[in-house]
Amino acid sequence: MGMKCIGIDIGGTSVKIGLFESTGELIDKWEVRTRSEDGGINILPDVAASIRSKVQEMGLDLKRDIAGAGMGIPGPVLSDGYVEVCVNLGWHNANPQEELSKLLDGIPVKSGNDANVAALGEMWQGGGMGCRDLVMVTLGTGVGGGVIIDQKIITGKHGLGGEIGHIHVRDEEKEHCNCGGVGCLEQVSSATGIAREARRRMAASDKDSILRRAGDRVTAKDVLDAAKAGDELALEVMETVGHYLGVALAAISMVVDPEIFVIGGGVSRAGQFLVDLIQKYYEQFTPISKNKARIVLATLGNDAGIYGAARLIL
Amino acid sequence: MGMKCIGIDIGGTSVKIGLFESTGELIDKWEVRTRSEDGGINILPDVAASIRSKVQEMGLDLKRDIAGAGMGIPGPVLSDGYVEVCVNLGWHNANPQEELSKLLDGIPVKSGNDANVAALGEMWQGGGMGCRDLVMVTLGTGVGGGVIIDQKIITGKHGLGGEIGHIHVRDEEKEHCNCGGVGCLEQVSSATGIAREARRRMAASDKDSILRRAGDRVTAKDVLDAAKAGDELALEVMETVGHYLGVALAAISMVVDPEIFVIGGGVSRAGQFLVDLIQKYYEQFTPISKNKARIVLATLGNDAGIYGAARLIL
Repeated sequence: MGMKCIGIDIGGTSVKIGLFESTGELIDKWEVRTRSEDGGINILPDVAASIRSKVQEMGLDLKRDIAGAGMGIPGPVLSDGYVEVCVNLGWHNANPQEELSKLLDGIPVKSGNDANVAALGEMWQGGGMGCRDLVMVTLGTGVGGGVIIDQKIITGKHGLGGEIGHIHVRDEEKEHCNCGGVGCLEQVSSATGIAREARRRMAASDKDSILRRAGDRVTAKDVLDAAKAGDELALEVMETVGHYLGVALAAISMVVDPEIFVIGGGVSRAGQFLVDLIQKYYEQFTPISKNKARIVLATLGNDAGIYGAARLIL
Repeated sequence: MGMKCIGIDIGGTSVKIGLFESTGELIDKWEVRTRSEDGGINILPDVAASIRSKVQEMGLDLKRDIAGAGMGIPGPVLSDGYVEVCVNLGWHNANPQEELSKLLDGIPVKSGNDANVAALGEMWQGGGMGCRDLVMVTLGTGVGGGVIIDQKIITGKHGLGGEIGHIHVRDEEKEHCNCGGVGCLEQVSSATGIAREARRRMAASDKDSILRRAGDRVTAKDVLDAAKAGDELALEVMETVGHYLGVALAAISMVVDPEIFVIGGGVSRAGQFLVDLIQKYYEQFTPISKNKARIVLATLGNDAGIYGAARLIL
């Protein structure tokens, strides 16, 4: 029996934890509630207690059988594990990986930003399996990213590595992004961005559309479903979304030229329809070379974080 | 006396060669003509003969005193040194680093794309000295780039790493770039791009300008000199150039987040004026973080290539 490792994905509502074989097989996964009150002082003790109890239940010994634990954290993490601030968890000036290691009898603990860690998970056992150079694009409420080169996460000198949602792509945009910028990728290709684009199109045209039934409550899912069903206005919205995703992915290729782009997050449930749309515009903005990155869907869903976290230890 | 190393920068007209101490001190540099006729079969033998003669002249022994040679090549180079095609030199399906090693009694020879190698040179002994994560932007006839992370060149899976001149930045552009794309950074911020932008502005406005004396023969240098002297039309041109350079550098920061950007190439002779302009727009497109990359001028000029090539060996 080889060593096992633990992957921890800390979210604002719950902490996902997985026990893995070092070969990548998920043995068991479970969740604990995130107690973010009181500056989040209970979060790591809760995680440690839960791991101890699971390890005991499985007849394992922490120091003998567990090679270590990896942890994805929803905020910037410096290379030594230092976290200046993690808004959702109430953490300030902490070193969570050192703290968790102490709570777990000194077994090795490593940590990283959750979006970067999810990218590592997709590289290890997901849509990018077998690749060493990968960029993950997570299209959710916002747009996150993770850049992996030669199997290592590029965190960047100031923690901005992989912040691809804030690549400026749209000069004509007038509204501000949450980051303070204008014309960010996130403003047009996140779930909220897609819905906003649909509201704008409805307001700007008289075109009939199934989306008008939902009106201002239109969601990204409504838009994608309608586009797949051939709704013209919804298709126009998605062409705009695809255009700017193509611009951003092409720019990323001109910087790090990955082997593969892995598209995840809630919006990616639209499946191959979305990939084909991105691919069309990605080709348009990369005529420089016939050989370029493939674009695929993520396959691990919400488990990408625990997979990637476990992979941090290997 | 420590080991020395050799840096070779192969250009279409001449090959620059430098002899370096392994500490980075340039001992001697010289050039040989590039004989690109006959499929470029004479280039490497000419280089080898020139190195042998210099080594002998200095009373050195090739195998005893020279740790190896690095070589910058004007085209894509795969990680094993394979070159599919190098148009300017007439090379096809070659492995120049293996060939040169054979011609030099088997001393180690490594190679890389010339723009990437120049970036490595600026990191080692130039504007980015002391940094491990650097992006070089070369504003010349075209726009080249080199991305270095953790002291290693990012060539990318398909040789597109650092092709930052072909990041799409300008949606309103209608003309095509040499790469086949539309709206590439190179179209607006290379020396030719700056001149073209000036011609367009002159044609589109009645504004008086010193640039009208040169008319259609206006150069990037004319534009930069006039802008520094306060010429309004020239300043408008340079604000546009700065805008799109700011967009591109901000995008690069959101992918790899380097410690420093080093600006080189003929256009960079405009000095701090250009840096300040790029900085202004870089700030505008990176409100997400106060901490971000510095922007500085390259300092090695045409020698960046031989420095970086020598650094390949260390």
